[in-house]
Amino acid sequence: MPSDLRLEPDETPLLIDFYELTMAASYFATGYNDKACFSLTTRRMPPRRGFLVAAGLERLLDVLEEFHFEPRMVEYLDSLKIFSPEFLQFLATLRFTGEVRALAEGTIFFAEEPLIEVRGPLIETQLIETIALNQLGMASLIASKAARSFAVAGGRRLVDFGLRRSQGADAGLIAARSSYMAGFHGSSNVLAGMRYGIPVYGTMAHSYVMAHEREREAFASFVKVFPRLSTLLVDTYDTVRGVENAAAVARDLASSGIVPMGVRLDSGNLIDLSRRARRILDEHGLKNVSIFASGNIDEYRIQEMVKAGAPIDAFGVGTAMAVSQDAPALDVAYKLVEYAGKPRLKTSENKPSLPGRKQIFRAFNRNGGFYSDLIGLEEESAVTVSREFRPAPAHIAPLLEPVFAGGKRIGPRPALNDARERFMREFAILEARFKQIDQPEVYPVRHSAALNALLISERLAAESRQD
Amino acid sequence: MPSDLRLEPDETPLLIDFYELTMAASYFATGYNDKACFSLTTRRMPPRRGFLVAAGLERLLDVLEEFHFEPRMVEYLDSLKIFSPEFLQFLATLRFTGEVRALAEGTIFFAEEPLIEVRGPLIETQLIETIALNQLGMASLIASKAARSFAVAGGRRLVDFGLRRSQGADAGLIAARSSYMAGFHGSSNVLAGMRYGIPVYGTMAHSYVMAHEREREAFASFVKVFPRLSTLLVDTYDTVRGVENAAAVARDLASSGIVPMGVRLDSGNLIDLSRRARRILDEHGLKNVSIFASGNIDEYRIQEMVKAGAPIDAFGVGTAMAVSQDAPALDVAYKLVEYAGKPRLKTSENKPSLPGRKQIFRAFNRNGGFYSDLIGLEEESAVTVSREFRPAPAHIAPLLEPVFAGGKRIGPRPALNDARERFMREFAILEARFKQIDQPEVYPVRHSAALNALLISERLAAESRQD
Repeated sequence: MPSDLRLEPDETPLLIDFYELTMAASYFATGYNDKACFSLTTRRMPPRRGFLVAAGLERLLDVLEEFHFEPRMVEYLDSLKIFSPEFLQFLATLRFTGEVRALAEGTIFFAEEPLIEVRGPLIETQLIETIALNQLGMASLIASKAARSFAVAGGRRLVDFGLRRSQGADAGLIAARSSYMAGFHGSSNVLAGMRYGIPVYGTMAHSYVMAHEREREAFASFVKVFPRLSTLLVDTYDTVRGVENAAAVARDLASSGIVPMGVRLDSGNLIDLSRRARRILDEHGLKNVSIFASGNIDEYRIQEMVKAGAPIDAFGVGTAMAVSQDAPALDVAYKLVEYAGKPRLKTSENKPSLPGRKQIFRAFNRNGGFYSDLIGLEEESAVTVSREFRPAPAHIAPLLEPVFAGGKRIGPRPALNDARERFMREFAILEARFKQIDQPEVYPVRHSAALNALLISERLAAESRQD
Repeated sequence: MPSDLRLEPDETPLLIDFYELTMAASYFATGYNDKACFSLTTRRMPPRRGFLVAAGLERLLDVLEEFHFEPRMVEYLDSLKIFSPEFLQFLATLRFTGEVRALAEGTIFFAEEPLIEVRGPLIETQLIETIALNQLGMASLIASKAARSFAVAGGRRLVDFGLRRSQGADAGLIAARSSYMAGFHGSSNVLAGMRYGIPVYGTMAHSYVMAHEREREAFASFVKVFPRLSTLLVDTYDTVRGVENAAAVARDLASSGIVPMGVRLDSGNLIDLSRRARRILDEHGLKNVSIFASGNIDEYRIQEMVKAGAPIDAFGVGTAMAVSQDAPALDVAYKLVEYAGKPRLKTSENKPSLPGRKQIFRAFNRNGGFYSDLIGLEEESAVTVSREFRPAPAHIAPLLEPVFAGGKRIGPRPALNDARERFMREFAILEARFKQIDQPEVYPVRHSAALNALLISERLAAESRQD
């Protein structure tokens, strides 16, 4: 029996909500399959977030390229005894033929701005709803969370330690990939290292020290096997004595030319312990031995330690980042915005949608920094919307770009490092007040006049749909 | 290029933290590979949790049965240029030969109680640390969260709607499986339906209503295609008018003998709207048309709606349950408790561990209810620990049972429904004060005298390990 963790080849089309299939069957029966456009947006920013980071697109495009229903899936659906043979036959040959416009991975974005717009026959574009929300939502959630640690780490190294507490296997891979994109230096996740070329980090657990009769023996033995990889975990018992033991091992090995690379603190008061560790190491002439801190670390603790001037060179960030602990879901929605050439919107209480195919126009100021965003219609252009910015910005760029058509990605698959560099570039030109982690200012995002006009006319049209 | 979402056959051994491999290499080089025992426990209860539900074991046992490193994994590790050819050769033929004792899925448990104990050669038992924490932690987290909705729903149907906001593909499957185990009736997740035989639920999204020119047309068309599956979503525009349109469609179809099954409310004040919807339906003679509520629902809102007597027949529970929003990670740890026949413990500040191989002794009172738990040593028995309960309980049962040996599961793989029934049975005999969702009482769990004695002597022994 194959492992239940494994997503078998071609199971992804069934990573959907059942209603996608019942709707599809109804559309199929009544012949509703004109061109639709869906828009995937974040309805509101999670608490304390001043900006979000787009991620997950490349994984979604993989799914779209492969999208089809295997015979055993069709058999399962048949066994539910509610679908017609004609519909099941239709599913068996269905492929995704739609077009996707999207924000490139690593792009900074804000609430209400579409991450993707998907256009194509109604049935196909509806069927990918759940997997699109699942993948883009999670990946962007974690990239946005990881960027907060990056924002306060002041250049200190950050390493993803989250796999053990990630919400399942896929979440661990997404966290490693998204955090690397948002400025982390690497991950403890070996599979992420192999798949994405992310640098892998890690040396020893408490069990390693505990398996040995004496702490010094554990340290010495590890340094000998991995002279270039020796960050010694010093808090299995008493941390200060652990640092002293690490220093003693360094002294014993000095004649052989081997120097431990660092010590890792994983519990207790990290500000105080890092100072004491630094002092002990320096007294032993071990100025190049670095201090690595881990254990319940999030962006708030990093900010506190950095502000206190704690002599910590690198942070291992686990649970809080990998599950986005203070906001473990993005409020993403995938809404029909156009059908058969006509705009559509939903007017549900507190959950309205914006009608029409859209574009995000990002304006930049003279020194190249972020100025403000305008959500407009696809048919608008940087030129037509330019008069809606006052005073005039230096430059306006549309953000949504075609990425998928004819069953394939448009152009080559971008490298993960391209997305990381894009994030770094955008992060650098976003003002500090929007990157603050406690009470960031709200970035100015408005609707274009054309979008507002459409919104008003479509609200009236929605009224008539209930007559 | 295969989908990045997919976990390729045999990638699971690389779902590990890098330090597992560096430790393994060091153990291999120095010949440290005696029998070890690791214990996987939850260090503390998440906030407001009075009990936890064990889940994830069967998925982990799948991994252990398959555990091995593929040639391409070994090649990747070789490319890192830090492992010896001898170690890589050792990995290439490594299998998991250890023994596992565990709580059966669906068992109610508490902080400090081992979910599993793993015994075998140090290297193998160390290498499975991360995947064990990842899988058991997430599955138990969600089963424990879902059980809270079950605790307050008063028998109303609960359906998992979480896939779109789950933290990745695997998380969605785990959430469907764990919530079903903890009393949910089904899931919207089609793949979970196929894999686990979980009943699948769902009918239509807002886009379905929006794609049609008129709401009534959308409803009528759906009811005709799915006469036995017609829960109509009534809040795309104005909810009350939506209910009236659903009733009108029912009236129009009455002559054909088709009756819609229900209406779904997905936004607004659900208590108020459910009452108004019930009144409208009843006035139209549609007493059998049920009311389904969804939209940002968690156990607190269910409790509120049930207490208010809102006429709601079923709840769709999504994000809050699927990511365990108020506590998105369990504080699980996998600690070495014995090596080469000698107990081990860690004394890190605030994160100590309990030494020795253990057993959980659960005592029951005369009416068959939960009485209290004792964490003791494996060598103890219900008879030897019985005098530590005062007054004497009616019955004492050890909870950890052998489940894996010789590279295989012991006995057949239990059905998911067995785990669900076990949970239901245990939930029924746990007193209400421990199941309360706001401020539950702390269930009495103590250490046996023998475990306490070992803890004291090992604390002294740990001192000497730093000399």
